[in-house]
Amino acid sequence: MPAKDRYHELVKRAFVKAGWTIAREQVYMSDNHRHIWIDLGIRRENDETLILIEIKGFDPSASMLDALMSAIGQYVVYRAMLDFLELQQPLYLAIPTTTYDGIFQIPVAKQAIVDLGIRLVVFNPLTEEIVQWKG
Amino acid sequence: MPAKDRYHELVKRAFVKAGWTIAREQVYMSDNHRHIWIDLGIRRENDETLILIEIKGFDPSASMLDALMSAIGQYVVYRAMLDFLELQQPLYLAIPTTTYDGIFQIPVAKQAIVDLGIRLVVFNPLTEEIVQWKG
Repeated sequence: MPAKDRYHELVKRAFVKAGWTIAREQVYMSDNHRHIWIDLGIRRENDETLILIEIKGFDPSASMLDALMSAIGQYVVYRAMLDFLELQQPLYLAIPTTTYDGIFQIPVAKQAIVDLGIRLVVFNPLTEEIVQWKG
Repeated sequence: MPAKDRYHELVKRAFVKAGWTIAREQVYMSDNHRHIWIDLGIRRENDETLILIEIKGFDPSASMLDALMSAIGQYVVYRAMLDFLELQQPLYLAIPTTTYDGIFQIPVAKQAIVDLGIRLVVFNPLTEEIVQWKG
C-alpha cells in the first residue's frame, strides 16, 4: 500500500465538513498483474453512489509540468483500471487551490483536462474546505 | 532542452535503417507557459507528412507501473499540446521490445492504450530495428 499523500487527513476533514461520509480508504483494485489503491471513496448519506478520490499534492520544488504529467498519467491509468474492472464509479483528482490556480490554468493543462475528461475537486488547505467540483 | 533518452541515437539509426529520414530533432512546442521538446520528427522521402516520436526507455530499477503512468502522462499532455496548437501530426511513443512485451501487456496498460488511443512504435535495441507500429 503506497504512502498517503500529505493532504490525506486534511482532505478527509474537508469532505466531512462538506457533508460527505468517508466510506472507504485506500480502495484496492487489481488487474491481477498490478495493484492500485485509490485514496478515498466518499458518499452522501442515503445515497449508495461511491465517488472515488485520488489526492494529489504538488511539490513546489518539483517541475510543475512533470508533476502535471505524472498526476494526469496516474489519473488516466487508474481510470483505465476502473474501466477494465467494469466499475462505474466516477474518479476525481483532488488538488489544492494553489495547484488549480497555477499549473492547471496553463493552456496545455486545460486542453488535456478537456481532451481526457479529467474530473477535478479542488480543496483549500488553509480553510480545509472543498471549494470546487469540475467535471 | 531536456536530456535525451539513452535510446535516442539507437532509435534514430533504427528509423534510418527502416527507410525513414530524421527530419527534425527536439521538436520545440509551447503554449506560451510551458515548453516541450518532442524527440524526433521523421518522414518518408517525397512525403511531407511529419511523424512525431517520443522515445521512452523504461528503467528496470523503477516501479514499472509508475514508469507506465509517467510515460502515458507525458504522451497525453504532449498530445494535448499538439491539439492546443492545432497541429495534426501523429505522435508515437517509441518503446523497446522488452517494455512492450512486459508492462504494456498487462490488462490495465492495454485498457489505457485503447481508451486513450495511444500510438506505439516498438524498437529492438539489440538489432536496432523497428519491429512494430501500433495505432
